[in-house]
Amino acid sequence: MSTTPCYDELARHCLRLHRFDHLAAIGGWDRAAKMPPKGNDARSAALAELAGLMHRLRTDPSLRERLDRAEQEPLDELQRANLREIRRDWFNANALPESLVQARQLATSRCEHAWRQQRPANDWAGFVEHFREVLRVGREEARLLSEQSGLSKYDALMDRYEPGMTCATVDRVFGEVRQWLPDLIARATERQRSRPLIEPVGPFPVAQQRALCEAAMRLMGFDFSAGRLDVSAHPFSGGVPEDVRLTTRYNTEEFLISLMGTIHETGHGRYEQNLPRALLGQPVALARSMAIHESQSLSFEMQLGRSRAFVEQLAPLVAEHLGPQPAFEAENLWRLLTRVAPGRIRVDADEVTYPAHVILRYEIERPLIEGEIEAEDIPALWNAKMQELLGIDTTGDYANGPLQDVHWPEALFGYFPCYSLGAMYAAQWFAAMRRAVPDTDTRVAQGDFTPVFGWLDQHIWQQGSRWTTDELALRASGETLNPAHFKAHLEARYLG
Amino acid sequence: MSTTPCYDELARHCLRLHRFDHLAAIGGWDRAAKMPPKGNDARSAALAELAGLMHRLRTDPSLRERLDRAEQEPLDELQRANLREIRRDWFNANALPESLVQARQLATSRCEHAWRQQRPANDWAGFVEHFREVLRVGREEARLLSEQSGLSKYDALMDRYEPGMTCATVDRVFGEVRQWLPDLIARATERQRSRPLIEPVGPFPVAQQRALCEAAMRLMGFDFSAGRLDVSAHPFSGGVPEDVRLTTRYNTEEFLISLMGTIHETGHGRYEQNLPRALLGQPVALARSMAIHESQSLSFEMQLGRSRAFVEQLAPLVAEHLGPQPAFEAENLWRLLTRVAPGRIRVDADEVTYPAHVILRYEIERPLIEGEIEAEDIPALWNAKMQELLGIDTTGDYANGPLQDVHWPEALFGYFPCYSLGAMYAAQWFAAMRRAVPDTDTRVAQGDFTPVFGWLDQHIWQQGSRWTTDELALRASGETLNPAHFKAHLEARYLG
Repeated sequence: MSTTPCYDELARHCLRLHRFDHLAAIGGWDRAAKMPPKGNDARSAALAELAGLMHRLRTDPSLRERLDRAEQEPLDELQRANLREIRRDWFNANALPESLVQARQLATSRCEHAWRQQRPANDWAGFVEHFREVLRVGREEARLLSEQSGLSKYDALMDRYEPGMTCATVDRVFGEVRQWLPDLIARATERQRSRPLIEPVGPFPVAQQRALCEAAMRLMGFDFSAGRLDVSAHPFSGGVPEDVRLTTRYNTEEFLISLMGTIHETGHGRYEQNLPRALLGQPVALARSMAIHESQSLSFEMQLGRSRAFVEQLAPLVAEHLGPQPAFEAENLWRLLTRVAPGRIRVDADEVTYPAHVILRYEIERPLIEGEIEAEDIPALWNAKMQELLGIDTTGDYANGPLQDVHWPEALFGYFPCYSLGAMYAAQWFAAMRRAVPDTDTRVAQGDFTPVFGWLDQHIWQQGSRWTTDELALRASGETLNPAHFKAHLEARYLG
Repeated sequence: MSTTPCYDELARHCLRLHRFDHLAAIGGWDRAAKMPPKGNDARSAALAELAGLMHRLRTDPSLRERLDRAEQEPLDELQRANLREIRRDWFNANALPESLVQARQLATSRCEHAWRQQRPANDWAGFVEHFREVLRVGREEARLLSEQSGLSKYDALMDRYEPGMTCATVDRVFGEVRQWLPDLIARATERQRSRPLIEPVGPFPVAQQRALCEAAMRLMGFDFSAGRLDVSAHPFSGGVPEDVRLTTRYNTEEFLISLMGTIHETGHGRYEQNLPRALLGQPVALARSMAIHESQSLSFEMQLGRSRAFVEQLAPLVAEHLGPQPAFEAENLWRLLTRVAPGRIRVDADEVTYPAHVILRYEIERPLIEGEIEAEDIPALWNAKMQELLGIDTTGDYANGPLQDVHWPEALFGYFPCYSLGAMYAAQWFAAMRRAVPDTDTRVAQGDFTPVFGWLDQHIWQQGSRWTTDELALRASGETLNPAHFKAHLEARYLG
């Protein structure tokens, strides 16, 4: 008889959830990438039925005692790490009462629906009408999660996306970045002002762009026997670790956004494709967190994808698939990919100005959740911070201001920091791999990406959720999150 | 308070199953049409988990009493029909013990797996080794279903696919066809011997074939906002009524198989797309049966699709998409589509010789199930019947003989008759619609398919499972299944 009966039972419970999650993931991918419009109502009902079933499984009252008993069983280290992650999943599923989950669903669905019209209409006043309820729900979630976890309110929200991350850390890290970023942006833009740049000349037919994107994915080691690339309105990395579904979208007048977006998703995809297989189906075998996931997509898109060495490899692929033109010479392509230009839209930002957008959102949503400011205070704060961080006057432009992201209508408070934490971790990983393999850049320039992918595989991908984020970083790079690597990276690339 | 509490509870149970079925259908479609190979193990596990859940829902012990009580509730006619179908589904899910379901799964999976190698190797002796166990399971299923339903053994198996169909009917119908078919085949082939025929000249690029198939689907009213056409190794009609997923496959040397196969699946697809929406999610709103489903695909592929009037419409589409050539003139295209040629392979057979293949299988699998013959007796019977019905000597050719279909390795005993019953119903529908709208053919020749689709919509599609098959046929055409219409159709088209 098993000496770990409660742990074994929990593991079976997780495997079951993993299998249902598989169907939810494929159903969701299909909805975004393949489903004809009239299929939507039936799909929504089917996915909601499955979500209800999974919620009932996750909130089964017997789990509490089973978790407590499993703690007393003779588990090995990996099982203990798995148990920690099972408890985390259980906590998140059980922390909020059904009534609040429903209130959130209702409030975000109303606000998001109205926002689709309000954003193009620049209608901030209309937006606030619905957003007040979303904020109320967000605050109530934060209060309850905080009570049960002992974390502060905003920490409790972040914990859902980046376990262990605290405002203390974010304040320290973003505080540092805030000090040197505006100056770095100014110097980088000044430096680029006079450098010659040739713009690509379209059109770029979709079939050729698709072939180029797939070639770039192959170059970056994506396994097409365990994944696909398709088209959706909003690009994402979906599917399951065993079958990764990436999406992009094509614009025949512009190919770099799609190409670099695909490279970004390929980073997410390779992380998933290379998660440890031994305990697959268990939480410990899943990706560590959102910031670590983003550190992979940004390792691909920014650290590797915009390095001179990699662009040398990419340039011939571009010319091969889109036909040669002067803009596709490696040096020019690299300049196109490293343009620094402060702008209003986060998702269009380059890697130098991007953190400013995230810091701004963090500095607004944290006091929002803590109750220090109200929804009505957002525009004035937004304008002040855009001026301060990026030197842009955004007065009266709500559409390209606080209405630009879906995160707030969706009550995704606590998510934004992950984007920039991911960028910083990515810089930290590349600093570590250059210490481990000093000729990394030379080999990348020769088309040999082994030093990069080998390091990521060993230190990040194969670790799954075995360690906390801090311990993962410590084991991988000898230190916890240190934004100095990000600064050094930006200085080397943009001021070097 | 509801006066039909038990019925309402059953209806909620059905809606839940309908939603889970949705995810199973999309997961299955994706596996066949999109999934990369390494996704297969995880997909199989996920679909099996869902199938297990659905089986537990279907065999919930409380259903028996609820069904009995609902019978006593004040139901309207449609609810009563729904209750009849709910009971049928319940009977089929509960009739067989779990141990037999597992034995079937094991036996068919072994036999089918071995068959994939044995068929190309022409290895009948090897096949019989595994097939004996499949047959044992099939007989045991027939025995148990027969005991519980009061039907004869083979009737009980057919009932799963075509409720209410009996050997008495099949014997009468196939008995009639058997008498006139060999002579009709001989006369049709003789008549075609000297007619000139121009073969199409390939290659036919896949992109052009796909555009042609989609154009043919549009011509036949397929709603692309509620369905798709994709590629799979074995073409099928999948998905759900709200989102129909058809597949085909392309061969660059031959386009007619893919085109007519797509038209066949379009018949299945339009039936699903036009099932009644009022009670969607309830069994009464689903397709009546396998034979009726096949009557729709064959109404499209054979009755309409190979009529002179329709081919007049199809010919310009073919020329438009594949480029003009003499073979695509309407008269020649029609001759290509109505060639009669006795052959060994059922799925390649024309509509005249097709019933011979089905009659042969019925005449073998019925005594097999009844225990009158054994697996070892199949080849001799096969050869005798192929000689008798189609004049072909198949001695020693097992690969193109009893090993050609997946049905026997899969224990799908009782399914084969549906194919030809469907062809006969289709002929009966077209006779009825010509009585209702005498200028049907004239209007089809003018490109107006309203008389055909309007009749099918009203008499078949919108009826769902409201009536038994016999009553559906009676209401639609004034009589139950009458193979005279099929004979008249073949004579008019091939001897007229």
